[in-house]
Amino acid sequence: MSESTLTFPEADASKLEPHLPPNPSSTTAASSPGTQDAGPSPQLPFVTLTYATSLDSALALAPGTRTALSGPQSKAMTHYLRSRHAAICVGVGTALADDPGLNCRIAPSSDADDQPLPLRQPRPIIIDPHQRWAFTSESKVLQLARAGRGLAPYILIAAAGPDPPAERRRLLEALGGKYISLGDASSPASPSPFAMDWRDILRAVRAEGLDSIMVEGGGQVISSLLGAPNAQLIDSVIITIAPTWLGAGSVFVSPARRLDGAGNPVQNS
Amino acid sequence: MSESTLTFPEADASKLEPHLPPNPSSTTAASSPGTQDAGPSPQLPFVTLTYATSLDSALALAPGTRTALSGPQSKAMTHYLRSRHAAICVGVGTALADDPGLNCRIAPSSDADDQPLPLRQPRPIIIDPHQRWAFTSESKVLQLARAGRGLAPYILIAAAGPDPPAERRRLLEALGGKYISLGDASSPASPSPFAMDWRDILRAVRAEGLDSIMVEGGGQVISSLLGAPNAQLIDSVIITIAPTWLGAGSVFVSPARRLDGAGNPVQNS
Ligand SMILES: NC(=O)c1ccc[n+]([C@@H]2O[C@H](COP(=O)([O-])OP(=O)(O)OC[C@H]3O[C@@H](n4cnc5c(N)ncnc54)[C@H](OP(=O)(O)O)[C@@H]3O)[C@@H](O)[C@H]2O)c1
Ligand SMILES: NC(=O)c1ccc[n+]([C@@H]2O[C@H](COP(=O)([O-])OP(=O)(O)OC[C@H]3O[C@@H](n4cnc5c(N)ncnc54)[C@H](OP(=O)(O)O)[C@@H]3O)[C@@H](O)[C@H]2O)c1
Repeated sequence: MSESTLTFPEADASKLEPHLPPNPSSTTAASSPGTQDAGPSPQLPFVTLTYATSLDSALALAPGTRTALSGPQSKAMTHYLRSRHAAICVGVGTALADDPGLNCRIAPSSDADDQPLPLRQPRPIIIDPHQRWAFTSESKVLQLARAGRGLAPYILIAAAGPDPPAERRRLLEALGGKYISLGDASSPASPSPFAMDWRDILRAVRAEGLDSIMVEGGGQVISSLLGAPNAQLIDSVIITIAPTWLGAGSVFVSPARRLDGAGNPVQNS
Repeated sequence: MSESTLTFPEADASKLEPHLPPNPSSTTAASSPGTQDAGPSPQLPFVTLTYATSLDSALALAPGTRTALSGPQSKAMTHYLRSRHAAICVGVGTALADDPGLNCRIAPSSDADDQPLPLRQPRPIIIDPHQRWAFTSESKVLQLARAGRGLAPYILIAAAGPDPPAERRRLLEALGGKYISLGDASSPASPSPFAMDWRDILRAVRAEGLDSIMVEGGGQVISSLLGAPNAQLIDSVIITIAPTWLGAGSVFVSPARRLDGAGNPVQNS
């Protein structure tokens, strides 16, 4: 838990700025903390997709393992990006594999009078339709929330599943987190009641007042967001590529194909 | 056949220089044309791996199709790189899919007295163990050789296979190309007599006086060269990445894994 604060050079931050959601700390009008009304659409948040990959588009050597693909600079960039988004999203595969902190450890920036601005922590969003993530009070993201160094997660679960265990719900809610059910539990058996539609995910996030979200991983989450017709929901993509190949059998990012009228594959872009 | 000459900015060329084989036109001592003795090893050529890929490490939407992943700048770079290598190598899959020209169309550079230097054309090397490439006099690379705008290919075939058809051999040899047999036809049946070892391929290339080779594709050729233990034969890697995803089902570059002592996968690098 004794991780140090990261710094991200101002010059690099300005280069990223055109690709980021509106900066709440740079507008004077919208500076009342807690209100989030700068989103690009009233229903959907600004969506940034960001990940670290190998040259062969792999996120990790194997599902369930964490593979270092970033150096100090790209790590600082990731944390800077987190400071610029209201929410940060991973799939349950990543929660299980990495026990991620999902907080922001960037050094706070200063206002015009050189006063440090309050560091905005992103809200962790975990996509976990089957409630596979058996978190405890010792899970890193909950430890950080308890220490005031991050926010407790919102966990997206399928309405078709059972109610979450009461004890786990209490633990989550005591720290400001919660479960959010998606889908319609009462509808006649849908063919895939645990598959979530990205529009529903993003609408649910926006309904919580979160006007921007950074989707960080892992492979399934990214590939499903990149696949047609979801790709059009993405506002920005920021990828760092490590000069290595992880090789066959790794966790790859690769979306499903889009087909043209004649059934031939076409490029996503 | 009326393709225009490409130009590659001097400044970009200098940036690439540290990653390229020794430049024959910039050394005064080794300037007698035809002798090639600047290679890094007497047995093996300098090996540059270069390809154009999507963000998900795909070379093409499907085997047997050509997908545009380069713009004018990266195309000019490819042709500049070809001018800096004695040989250029593709697999039979690429020969069949693309009917590639495999020549160099870069504008010739000038010497100290502003005289245009002769343009060195790279020797095309085609890896075709089963002689699947049924080229004719109309195949692009042969047309270009006939027009003096490129060299006829050297085709690497497996010694275990039949002799190539006499007519095709004549066509090839009349233009300065040839077949080169690899492996030992007389050895007792090897488990995979058509699989070529990269050391044998490169030694055969070097034995032809070719001291540098640029390996361009396709997916199988690149992945096999990148896999352990071949990766150590590579001197330089130059990749251009197009901001698109081709998606599941494409022709991917991804090497086989290297395993550590305990059988766990480790990164290639
Ligand atoms: N390099 C990086 O930038 C980076 C970043 C993050 C993670 N990673 C790595 O990625 C790996 C984990 O990736 P992963 O592909 O195994 O897991 P993942 O993408 O984190 O999570 C996948 C799971 O999320 C759920 N899910 C995803 N999309 C869904 C949708 N549209 N609807 C409903 N459920 C959905 C599914 O849960 P159910 O199966 O329960 O339905 C699915 O199995 C780890 O090794 C981690 O280290 C790398
Ligand atoms: N984007 C780019 O930069 C780029 C560049 C080039 C090509 N491409 C694309 O790549 C695709 C073709 O790729 P591909 O993977 O299908 O074919 P490929 O790699 O060009 O050729 C594969 C074939 O070469 C032979 N081969 C390769 N390595 C060998 C070895 N070590 N020993 C013996 N034989 C070996 C095998 O022939 P046998 O099966 O007969 O044994 C194999 O099937 C095309 O769609 C093309 O457009 C893209």
